[in-house]
Amino acid sequence: MVHPVSPLAPKSFADLPAIAGVRFATAEAGIKYKNRTDVLLMAFDEGTTAAGVLTRSKCSSAAVDWCKVNLPGGRARGLVVNSGSANAFTGAKGQASVQLTAELAAKALGCATAEIFLASTGVIGEPLDANKFAGLLDTMATRLNDTPWMAPAKAIMTTDTFPKLNGATLEIDGIAVKINGIAKGSGMIAPDMATMLGFVVTDMPIAAPVLQALLSRHVATSFNAITVDSDMSTSDTLLAFATSKAAVELINSLDDPRAEIFGKALRDVLFDLAIQVVRDGEGATKQISIHVEGATSDASAFRIAKSIADSPLVKTAIAGEDANWGRVVMAVGKAGEPADRDKLAIRFGDLLVAKNGERAPIYDEVATSAYMKGEDIEITASLGLGAGRATVYTCDLTHGYITINGDYRS
Amino acid sequence: MVHPVSPLAPKSFADLPAIAGVRFATAEAGIKYKNRTDVLLMAFDEGTTAAGVLTRSKCSSAAVDWCKVNLPGGRARGLVVNSGSANAFTGAKGQASVQLTAELAAKALGCATAEIFLASTGVIGEPLDANKFAGLLDTMATRLNDTPWMAPAKAIMTTDTFPKLNGATLEIDGIAVKINGIAKGSGMIAPDMATMLGFVVTDMPIAAPVLQALLSRHVATSFNAITVDSDMSTSDTLLAFATSKAAVELINSLDDPRAEIFGKALRDVLFDLAIQVVRDGEGATKQISIHVEGATSDASAFRIAKSIADSPLVKTAIAGEDANWGRVVMAVGKAGEPADRDKLAIRFGDLLVAKNGERAPIYDEVATSAYMKGEDIEITASLGLGAGRATVYTCDLTHGYITINGDYRS
Repeated sequence: MVHPVSPLAPKSFADLPAIAGVRFATAEAGIKYKNRTDVLLMAFDEGTTAAGVLTRSKCSSAAVDWCKVNLPGGRARGLVVNSGSANAFTGAKGQASVQLTAELAAKALGCATAEIFLASTGVIGEPLDANKFAGLLDTMATRLNDTPWMAPAKAIMTTDTFPKLNGATLEIDGIAVKINGIAKGSGMIAPDMATMLGFVVTDMPIAAPVLQALLSRHVATSFNAITVDSDMSTSDTLLAFATSKAAVELINSLDDPRAEIFGKALRDVLFDLAIQVVRDGEGATKQISIHVEGATSDASAFRIAKSIADSPLVKTAIAGEDANWGRVVMAVGKAGEPADRDKLAIRFGDLLVAKNGERAPIYDEVATSAYMKGEDIEITASLGLGAGRATVYTCDLTHGYITINGDYRS
Repeated sequence: MVHPVSPLAPKSFADLPAIAGVRFATAEAGIKYKNRTDVLLMAFDEGTTAAGVLTRSKCSSAAVDWCKVNLPGGRARGLVVNSGSANAFTGAKGQASVQLTAELAAKALGCATAEIFLASTGVIGEPLDANKFAGLLDTMATRLNDTPWMAPAKAIMTTDTFPKLNGATLEIDGIAVKINGIAKGSGMIAPDMATMLGFVVTDMPIAAPVLQALLSRHVATSFNAITVDSDMSTSDTLLAFATSKAAVELINSLDDPRAEIFGKALRDVLFDLAIQVVRDGEGATKQISIHVEGATSDASAFRIAKSIADSPLVKTAIAGEDANWGRVVMAVGKAGEPADRDKLAIRFGDLLVAKNGERAPIYDEVATSAYMKGEDIEITASLGLGAGRATVYTCDLTHGYITINGDYRS
């Protein structure tokens, strides 16, 4: 079943530049989908460092387990991603499958299996037959290119309705340094993880522990601040690779002032990709930003924002363009975090709808209803208790979500 | 907008008997709905004890706050319930509204305001004008009856598509003792609370602290074990009243062996009403029981069961009659509780679908698909870690839920 492209899809796609030290190829392995690419092989030159953030699911996929073992090494030569099967909850077969895939990729690229990273996305519980990659990865290794980045972005899609790319070029020591990123994800998207899949490549020379620290720091306000349906995936994987080909000195410590500059650019790329995942949320017709301020701590603010963002009643009201702020009150109340009903204020955009525990005297139903017809909805809950703040990004809950998920597997 | 009656509605309704010591009247106050009763006045004879369980929401309604103050007194003479407005998040106006309602009811029934209990259900944030009850409650007090119980069950409905009643008659000391219960609720239903509204009346002579202890104990496996949409209400209220008119000796202690007997009957009534709420879940087409066994503790089992029951992906798959057990794995994995993927087994009904961390060798797609076409779906997750077990009851997530909640307020 083909689903219509999200109305929130971007009007045009980023035309990402080649990055020295990384080349890739895609192919059709026919794992589940027909007539579309479903395998990505990415090859990194020697000297590439790696960092990653993986799902915290207790039922993580075989590929996630594989990455967990290799990440501490901090070095990467290859990445293999397939769509159509998540190779999750596949037991010993799953472990054998990732082992064979890594061996085939290591042979094709002439490196050690410890330098190969893997990711799989698709149906849970179906064994992935790695023999489909035998020969295929060898062939792919003979036709590696450094553009266009649209190709890998497309090969990793499942129920995504558009490919997700973003990049940044920043100047460090007078040299143009590049960061390219791709991501996929549309359902089974919740905070406390990476996204379904996200891959970032830079030519910045940066030590693996520094790259890891920056990635972990900035995932908190990007991929970990989004939710489509509160359902954390078994396969969430965010990996960053630094080919170190840019002609600037290595960043070897977080104390290097360039780490901050590079980190900000990295954060912008991660954030843009995360928002694209929200905007391709299954059935989404509106992007929603939930801001919580005045909480007793940032962590408390985040949990309250997530409670609002995950509330089916809030999300369906927004789908119906209904300024039903009472449901926001409900979601604040159910979060289990410190809140004082009689200090709570709520704004939709700049419009104050509730204050001091009741409807605001200046509440304007006509203006608020008009605001709800927009594509981007901002909701702010001010708790009046402290300085804690957080923002969570989500989308509305529509008939489209039900349709997509009522017949995904069959 | 009128929504079709739930396909899970009962074929017939319980014909509850009169209970000595309680009479009631219903009326149309026109608070929100037209041409249907929306106010219930229940009058209890002197000597009636009371117990209750209220929402834990931090944004509780004015009526909930009122009950919190009166419950420790343990005595009841009157109950006023309205549908159409929740009188929640209405600030000082809400407090004044419950104060005036209680005064009007106390005057009509000739008792103290401390013996009046209140509950409101409907839209959040709209002030409730208690002046609508002036005169009305006096008139209602002149036409109190002890049957039919269908009348109060109907007067408290909001988006409910059928009235919810259940009762029990048990023999204690050779005397027939009665328990009657009514409830309402369809959306904004989640564990960790009572239900939206539930009221139980018995003629058993039972001291308020004992009634409270039994109510608190049995709410855990009835109303607190259901979830429709994970959204905890601001107004959840479960109240029990004992008119003490049955000609048996007072139960004055939990050590009285009759407390256990009475408690079991009470539990059956609470459980039946809670299941009726699930079966009238907004948009529901299937009732789902999620059993978790082999967890490290009962509390851990409950949290895992709730994670499965609240997963939109699990609920939409069941709506689509898709035996997508991979989503159950996902929901176990995201619960954050102890779980070992490679010990996990999952059954749909009696059909084993997954075992030892992968698809069961005896998995039968045809039989499992046939099972999913039934109206009652049982899912069991066996963790293989300990003796902890719990069951949570829910319904599927369908287009009906989106339709109902996308246009509820407007």
